[in-house]
Amino acid sequence: MLTGIPSKEDILAAAGIIKEKAHRTPLLSSSAINSMFGCTILFKCENFQKAGAFKFRGAYYSLKSLSPSELQKGVTTHSSGNHAAALALSAKLSNSKAYIVMPETAPKIKKDAVRTYGAEIFFCQPNLKSRIEKVEEVIAQTGATLIHPYDNYTVIAGQATCALEIFEEVKDADYIIAPVGGGGLLSGTCLSAKYFSPSVKVIGAEPKGADDAYRSIRDGYIHPSVNPKTICDGLLTQLCDKTFEIIKNNAERIITCSDDSVIESMRLIWERMKIIVEPSAAITLAAIMENQILFEGKRVVCILSGGNVDLNRLPWNS
Amino acid sequence: MLTGIPSKEDILAAAGIIKEKAHRTPLLSSSAINSMFGCTILFKCENFQKAGAFKFRGAYYSLKSLSPSELQKGVTTHSSGNHAAALALSAKLSNSKAYIVMPETAPKIKKDAVRTYGAEIFFCQPNLKSRIEKVEEVIAQTGATLIHPYDNYTVIAGQATCALEIFEEVKDADYIIAPVGGGGLLSGTCLSAKYFSPSVKVIGAEPKGADDAYRSIRDGYIHPSVNPKTICDGLLTQLCDKTFEIIKNNAERIITCSDDSVIESMRLIWERMKIIVEPSAAITLAAIMENQILFEGKRVVCILSGGNVDLNRLPWNS
Repeated sequence: MLTGIPSKEDILAAAGIIKEKAHRTPLLSSSAINSMFGCTILFKCENFQKAGAFKFRGAYYSLKSLSPSELQKGVTTHSSGNHAAALALSAKLSNSKAYIVMPETAPKIKKDAVRTYGAEIFFCQPNLKSRIEKVEEVIAQTGATLIHPYDNYTVIAGQATCALEIFEEVKDADYIIAPVGGGGLLSGTCLSAKYFSPSVKVIGAEPKGADDAYRSIRDGYIHPSVNPKTICDGLLTQLCDKTFEIIKNNAERIITCSDDSVIESMRLIWERMKIIVEPSAAITLAAIMENQILFEGKRVVCILSGGNVDLNRLPWNS
Repeated sequence: MLTGIPSKEDILAAAGIIKEKAHRTPLLSSSAINSMFGCTILFKCENFQKAGAFKFRGAYYSLKSLSPSELQKGVTTHSSGNHAAALALSAKLSNSKAYIVMPETAPKIKKDAVRTYGAEIFFCQPNLKSRIEKVEEVIAQTGATLIHPYDNYTVIAGQATCALEIFEEVKDADYIIAPVGGGGLLSGTCLSAKYFSPSVKVIGAEPKGADDAYRSIRDGYIHPSVNPKTICDGLLTQLCDKTFEIIKNNAERIITCSDDSVIESMRLIWERMKIIVEPSAAITLAAIMENQILFEGKRVVCILSGGNVDLNRLPWNS
């Protein structure tokens, strides 16, 4: 496990390991969307990644960084979202075990996703205190290693490989936009930009109803995420010290977007590109939609972070 | 315009023209779907084609086959579906005009798609007689050339370029499955298989509730499509003499599928592959789903013919 901010070599090492099992996801574009917004947009399709989100990168790399005895004891995390599924799949692929702590109230579809990959679920109350206690209990019982979804430099190095792949193919981007929740993907993107494409400006896209990262960067200290209200269910969490430091020193800015723009962007991507992305991914296009003059005539990469959506509950049908 | 069954050279010529504007669509696969069905499936993603369906191939090639004076007078067709949108876009890209005859009752989304590409809409009553009369009226008024969606060898040569692309990349397929409605795509697929990959078996997939092609091939004469009942809105039409002859002489068989299997397949493709396909495309996977023993251990190409779906009306929400 890495104990400091990942270096250029750390990210290259992560990429060498991750490519064993991860998809090298394509960069797609839509001429219709480009002409709508007056810029050239390249979409990095992490919705096509294993387990449907970029999270597989960090999770798989973490598993691969464990010692044989740690691997045997397994890994744990408290999450009901994409990180949980990614960790479960990574454990399965590494002949290890995953113990996932999630609230009893988590949607069935998320429980099923984690179970499909063979993980064991431990239920807790739907609050942070109960989650943490349950994880501690699981660790005490099993000796499993906690793999935090973003407060972990090894995970950040894994997420950085997404932007590394982008910069191997795209040499002249003006901007790269990543969603920001806990900041793992955005931190990794900042680091890869710094090492591999220093002229590109890195932007974080965040829901207005969960704008703690925006306020944290503005004010110079971490604001907690209190009662976030957004359909971007992957962006509810707050920065940690590690991600705050990297983002503060390397990101150009955080752009906040309304849920209405997110829904409009999501629908546009579905209709025009015929690909399925989740709200937390579509927010990168929403950032352009709400700031068209800033991006006019530019080349912009949007990281479509994931595609895990409950098809029975689409935002335009509710 | 071609006056006989397209030859190998005709299809290669069509491919040379079509590649100017059409996307070379990717072949995707899903290890989860492969292990579910015990075979290796390659999906040819014509849902990513211009205007969202393979129809762009035949429509664009038809426009490119017109004389300058014909181009100036424009093209017409009676259709409210993917062919209409493809023809409208092809006319726009060829500096021509498209006059689309569609019933007043056509969904707004289809009218909008055609208008977006700059075509002029002429409304008729929702029956075949009124459609044909209105098209004749349009031709008398404008001198436009009728581009039939499949009763046209030039269109068939265009549709054949889809399978040509497949066989350039896939050398060892056992089966290729194409949906069958009027038979344009299936005919083109048969011809490309014959010329470029003679060992592959070509299968048509058709809804049980619109199984006129199945009955036509079985009985040796064309059955009309009477009151078809299926969610595959692109597969309601019947074979014509041209497509019947090609399919009869070259296809291995027609497999019919229930709408329930189509919906299940469609949802599986959306959830597992994160791509949007319409029911008429998902039927190719439904054919495997309903005949798993036949395809066990085989390499199968499924042509995902299109991705135009009304996102407000998904089959699993109704």
